[in-house]
Amino acid sequence: MRQTLLFILLIVVSVSGTCLAQSVQIPVVEDFKPASTNQPGRQYPQVNSEGRVRASISAPEAQRVQLDISAVKYDLVKDTSGVWTGDSDPQDEGFHYYQLWIDGAAVPDPASLYFYGASRWGSGIEIPAKDQDFYALKNVPHGQIREHLYFSKSNNSMRRCFVYTPPGYNKDTTKRYPVLYLQHGGGEDETGWSNQGRTNLIMDNLIAEGKAKAKPFIIVMDNGTWRWPENVPRPRRGERPSGPWPPAGWADGFKKTLLEDIIPMIDANYRTLADQPHRAMAGLSMGGMQTRVITLANPDVFSHVGIFSGGSISMDDVDNSPGFKEKVKLVFVSYGSRELENRRMGFGGDPKANTEALKEASINTHFYVSPNTAHEWQSWRRSLHEFAPFLFKD
Amino acid sequence: MRQTLLFILLIVVSVSGTCLAQSVQIPVVEDFKPASTNQPGRQYPQVNSEGRVRASISAPEAQRVQLDISAVKYDLVKDTSGVWTGDSDPQDEGFHYYQLWIDGAAVPDPASLYFYGASRWGSGIEIPAKDQDFYALKNVPHGQIREHLYFSKSNNSMRRCFVYTPPGYNKDTTKRYPVLYLQHGGGEDETGWSNQGRTNLIMDNLIAEGKAKAKPFIIVMDNGTWRWPENVPRPRRGERPSGPWPPAGWADGFKKTLLEDIIPMIDANYRTLADQPHRAMAGLSMGGMQTRVITLANPDVFSHVGIFSGGSISMDDVDNSPGFKEKVKLVFVSYGSRELENRRMGFGGDPKANTEALKEASINTHFYVSPNTAHEWQSWRRSLHEFAPFLFKD
Repeated sequence: MRQTLLFILLIVVSVSGTCLAQSVQIPVVEDFKPASTNQPGRQYPQVNSEGRVRASISAPEAQRVQLDISAVKYDLVKDTSGVWTGDSDPQDEGFHYYQLWIDGAAVPDPASLYFYGASRWGSGIEIPAKDQDFYALKNVPHGQIREHLYFSKSNNSMRRCFVYTPPGYNKDTTKRYPVLYLQHGGGEDETGWSNQGRTNLIMDNLIAEGKAKAKPFIIVMDNGTWRWPENVPRPRRGERPSGPWPPAGWADGFKKTLLEDIIPMIDANYRTLADQPHRAMAGLSMGGMQTRVITLANPDVFSHVGIFSGGSISMDDVDNSPGFKEKVKLVFVSYGSRELENRRMGFGGDPKANTEALKEASINTHFYVSPNTAHEWQSWRRSLHEFAPFLFKD
Repeated sequence: MRQTLLFILLIVVSVSGTCLAQSVQIPVVEDFKPASTNQPGRQYPQVNSEGRVRASISAPEAQRVQLDISAVKYDLVKDTSGVWTGDSDPQDEGFHYYQLWIDGAAVPDPASLYFYGASRWGSGIEIPAKDQDFYALKNVPHGQIREHLYFSKSNNSMRRCFVYTPPGYNKDTTKRYPVLYLQHGGGEDETGWSNQGRTNLIMDNLIAEGKAKAKPFIIVMDNGTWRWPENVPRPRRGERPSGPWPPAGWADGFKKTLLEDIIPMIDANYRTLADQPHRAMAGLSMGGMQTRVITLANPDVFSHVGIFSGGSISMDDVDNSPGFKEKVKLVFVSYGSRELENRRMGFGGDPKANTEALKEASINTHFYVSPNTAHEWQSWRRSLHEFAPFLFKD
């Protein structure tokens, strides 16, 4: 009886699907407010309590205007004054890149702030999160984000990194600090962790909660964008690579820059504790893959490892890295829950099984899952917030 | 005879003007190169040796696309693949804000970097200048730009400033430095002087040339945006103000923030020489007007004054500011040459005459004119470059 009812219901739904979609509109909750990522004084885009984005732009001569967010395009509707407005479906809490389409042109929303991601400077929007307090700007002691220009011998060029120095760094000029090297993802750059990631606010707030929460340390955010290795045949444009992906040696360029240029430069210019026990590396997505490759190859250099949405470390990996088991004090692996649901596991196999195996081998390992988020910044803000308290405490 | 010829010529020109404009096209020099202000990897916009900007964007369904730069709109032309391309007239050397219009929508160019000016984050483009070497990124010792978050009592809110610390600041932690408070113009913010102004590179290069060029000092760049004073009647929207412009007391809010919050915060957090002989203030346009008002009211606080495209100081001003003549060691005034040609003199009367009068009264005064530039960033980069060597040398 129950199965028959379900069967009938399925037929009704499938037959009348199109009709339903047009006639039974889900009501939108009309409590939209300007996004915190808007340019000063701008009323749009707005976000409501469901996490819907309402975009609006004046384009009186346009034929079609769309909001493009999370890989879905939503048609905006024109009013009599030539202003187009429309809503997206509910979005995950946290930060999202988006853009507008105006008569076939993909452009940034002129009302939003801009962020570097998806290989371009473009619009971003903040969907208020239940846990947003941990990355809120508060009246607590603040560290600084410093733009640091330096010459890289291994690249024979000037480069830029951003360096977070914790609160108090300028006061007591004798104190030395551990260092975390923190890498962005593919299509992002050295601005990602401070602009989208809110690294400084996450750390300032943690440190303000007291030493039980997190020890103060320096964070270095450099550009890990990689070029195709010269000794590996490059697939033709539009073709899928025939060999392994990413190609062998893909992380070598940044590994060389990090070990030969960045770390010595940081140790020479900041009051660091310049040894393996006080040096960590972490990264998100591509930056997590780089962290995995570089720390496995250099257990003498890094003691604490964080891989956010970028794979995990297996016992095979550990067995092939002499000294890793003895010298590395922490392996932290994290994912957004939706990544695990979609089986987007990344490199190194099942992250949960890998973590369990490392634990059984007495390696200090943590596995964190960000609830109801995908391969996106809210997963990585939370990952940093969970990771930081484990650092440099052993 | 000569006059008759001229007369005939004028008739010919005026009669056939429209026809001439259409048929005799001035040839465009085809040596366009991608602008240095493009997003990574973008081929457009481009600039040629005449200073023309060539913009290009894919907008296959659009009816009209325009490049909008220096208050002039230029029509782009569509090719068979739906890409619109077109050129501007030659622009002044240096930095310019611009935007695109797509079927009536004003949007940033998705291919450019973004800057805050004209009261919005939007596109900017660099026209290579003959003297661009003085603000080029070179392999010399570099200072840092630090993002500094702080609580302002007088505003009861968190605020942000950017602080330039000179090369060497992190090495010798006993050395103390003079401070320049450097203000942006109207519709700009605390990011202007480092992003568009290239303040850090100008100073790094000057300092690298040796002490004869410029002494190292700290530069503080805060947000001087002002609100209409509460005790002055506000003109209705669209109406011109009936009283004096700007209204009396317009600079009081920032003056209070600067004197009560910013200066004490900087002196508490940086190794400053915290006295009048080692404290300067300068600004461009609105920031120059603020500098004029604030330094005239506080000759006990500031010893060196720079006003770039923002008026000048007259002997009347000096006579009404007790102590100014004795205590202030430098009054520097500058303009772009095109501003003087257009008689855009600003506040305080004729800047050249005022400067001469101050000189005659034995006040150390300099008047600088930036060649072939208007009310724009190239005038202000050059002004800082001319101003800095005079600072803190007496």
